Amino acid sequence: VVVGDQSLDLAKEKVENRPHGEAIEFDAANDTFRKTEIAKADLVISMLPAFMHILVAKDCLEFKKNLLAPSYVSTEVQALGQEVKDSGLLFMFELGLDPGLDHMSAMRMVHQLREQGAKITAFRSYTGGLIAEESVDNPWAYKFTWNPRNVVLAGQGTGQYKEGGVLKCVPYHHLFKSAHQIDVPGVGSFDAYPNRNSLKYHEIYSMQDVPTLLRGTIRYAGFAEAWAGLVDLGLTDDTYKLPLKSKTTVLQFIRAFVPEKLGSDIRAAVLKHLELEGKDSVIEKYESIDLFSDLIIPLDEASPAQVLEWLLLRKWTLKPEDKDFIVMQHDHAIKSYMTATGENATDTAMSRLVGLPVAIFAKYFLNGNIKATGIHRPITPELYNPILDELEEMGVTFVEHAD
Amino acid sequence: VVVGDQSLDLAKEKVENRPHGEAIEFDAANDTFRKTEIAKADLVISMLPAFMHILVAKDCLEFKKNLLAPSYVSTEVQALGQEVKDSGLLFMFELGLDPGLDHMSAMRMVHQLREQGAKITAFRSYTGGLIAEESVDNPWAYKFTWNPRNVVLAGQGTGQYKEGGVLKCVPYHHLFKSAHQIDVPGVGSFDAYPNRNSLKYHEIYSMQDVPTLLRGTIRYAGFAEAWAGLVDLGLTDDTYKLPLKSKTTVLQFIRAFVPEKLGSDIRAAVLKHLELEGKDSVIEKYESIDLFSDLIIPLDEASPAQVLEWLLLRKWTLKPEDKDFIVMQHDHAIKSYMTATGENATDTAMSRLVGLPVAIFAKYFLNGNIKATGIHRPITPELYNPILDELEEMGVTFVEHAD
Repeated sequence: VVVGDQSLDLAKEKVENRPHGEAIEFDAANDTFRKTEIAKADLVISMLPAFMHILVAKDCLEFKKNLLAPSYVSTEVQALGQEVKDSGLLFMFELGLDPGLDHMSAMRMVHQLREQGAKITAFRSYTGGLIAEESVDNPWAYKFTWNPRNVVLAGQGTGQYKEGGVLKCVPYHHLFKSAHQIDVPGVGSFDAYPNRNSLKYHEIYSMQDVPTLLRGTIRYAGFAEAWAGLVDLGLTDDTYKLPLKSKTTVLQFIRAFVPEKLGSDIRAAVLKHLELEGKDSVIEKYESIDLFSDLIIPLDEASPAQVLEWLLLRKWTLKPEDKDFIVMQHDHAIKSYMTATGENATDTAMSRLVGLPVAIFAKYFLNGNIKATGIHRPITPELYNPILDELEEMGVTFVEHAD
Repeated sequence: VVVGDQSLDLAKEKVENRPHGEAIEFDAANDTFRKTEIAKADLVISMLPAFMHILVAKDCLEFKKNLLAPSYVSTEVQALGQEVKDSGLLFMFELGLDPGLDHMSAMRMVHQLREQGAKITAFRSYTGGLIAEESVDNPWAYKFTWNPRNVVLAGQGTGQYKEGGVLKCVPYHHLFKSAHQIDVPGVGSFDAYPNRNSLKYHEIYSMQDVPTLLRGTIRYAGFAEAWAGLVDLGLTDDTYKLPLKSKTTVLQFIRAFVPEKLGSDIRAAVLKHLELEGKDSVIEKYESIDLFSDLIIPLDEASPAQVLEWLLLRKWTLKPEDKDFIVMQHDHAIKSYMTATGENATDTAMSRLVGLPVAIFAKYFLNGNIKATGIHRPITPELYNPILDELEEMGVTFVEHAD
């Protein structure tokens, strides 16, 4: 197994001294280098961000290599589908947690229900990458267990889903405000909000006739209201840069987003502007990230989102002993849910649940047990059963319960 | 004068049978064609949208032609400044109404005040392209007097300005909600909201030390509140497409943006969602554009903004006899304002005030009265005086009055 990373040290750290492992420095944007390595591979596994897959996908076509990846299949890559099939190759995407395990477990449940003759009238599926309760040490009950920048920008665009046959569009500035509560029996109550465009899953899940279809994201209760305030203020905007000159304080930065006429008591002005008067729990969350402090922002020029990311990284970075916590729930006639807790800040539930499905599938594929060709997501029993079965042996199980 | 347009008929219509005019079909995106015409010209006047200026600017450099344009100078074009100067050429941008006359009249006033030894502590400048009161026949008191698409998308991005030395950022979803009232003496009260990024005018206007600097846009009173509602609903979003299949009604479309739990009375649900309960004046404006109607949207796939534009074009298109109305006000220690009313739907105040400054400047320039080289805006007396003086003879005057 050849493990490539921009940093050779990081690659070596992953490989350790395993006899069948080799660490290399790998710059995916370097065409010559990328093509050379891909030409040598038996199977290519891309852990790159989704927007870079097209580079790898085209090389895999050129050198006739099969390709696995945990992240989203882009429209650009999807367009190569016929060519991939004609070459007798398999490109599997969305093999991670979300997207990935969410598809697999949902589709297994749906296929079982349909075999029993059930008609599905509503399908809601939620996933959250959180931290274990024992590691909660801030009022948001949240820390970064994936890309911090993506957490800050999460939800930008418009949430789209179907409810009782009616199309629903939730603009970003309403997304977190409109969060609803979901209960995961025996686990707890959570905030949930629509995750991007659920409409395309009518087709992907063969659910064209299901009147209610929603994919959502889970946070601990109370997160959504306070985050909605940050969005409302404009602090997650990444489309323009402010001249900060490395001498602006956080308080001066925040004042820019609050009308002057609301007065000089910044906490009161913020709550008034957000129409959250009296919500001390929100102010407590803001205080915890030093939102009203005289800290100097050490950036010369930055978007509001970049300033917010810098602020949050100071407080939301996992400590070595912190454990992450993943919760996933599908809600149809019956509910099924899965939770997973990490070991520490390195061996996280997130990294295991993103990586293991890819690894398990790679093993089955290399053993010759997968016959499919073309571009696929793991939504048919042939593709999801080996993964879900082996994960179950590892203790990743879905609990079913009546509503 | 050679007048080029994508449509030869339109070009002919403009030229009529004037002895020194020639109409040609002109596709600005066709490199060969564009270069051929520019190579033949004595002076190039570009009425293209700002994002296309770079094509023309590069050709003008290549063929050593001077260039005039009413619209914004882009960063891309600005970067050619030294090269333009070294070639001894003049590229003049922002020679229209806004940007254009706003700069000229503001700078003349500021230069006069400074000559009198005045210290400027606040500068606010507002422009609105409206319709004359006699042509108002809808509750918005608004019709399209410039590009409808740009009206629908107006204000996207973040309004930025300085108030009492404090940086202010107004996110798009707050922009119209935060509109303030301004009074133009003898003309009326208006809604005004920040126009894009005013911060760069600290430098352009040589007002680095002025603590309050705001450029704003004017609408008739009541417009901003109702338009804020359309923004809040998400109807001005142009970033994604909805599958309408040419069979969705306007009412079905609107329901997508209102939470189901607010009930089936769409008018009440909209007001509740927008926190505008009891605001019949807003509902009246929405009714006037058929926002709750069973009209079929004749589009297969469209962004919310495209649907809204289609709706508005049905009601906000100028009738042949309609007159437009322009109001501009600068507000420092003293106020100065200008208004202009069009003749009809063709000979609009908008087209005259965008076109005449360019034409007047072209005449002065061709007569050899302008010595500047490089890329400029009309913000120095040499450049703005000829235009403002000749416009005054045509009746375009700024009235000054104490606050």
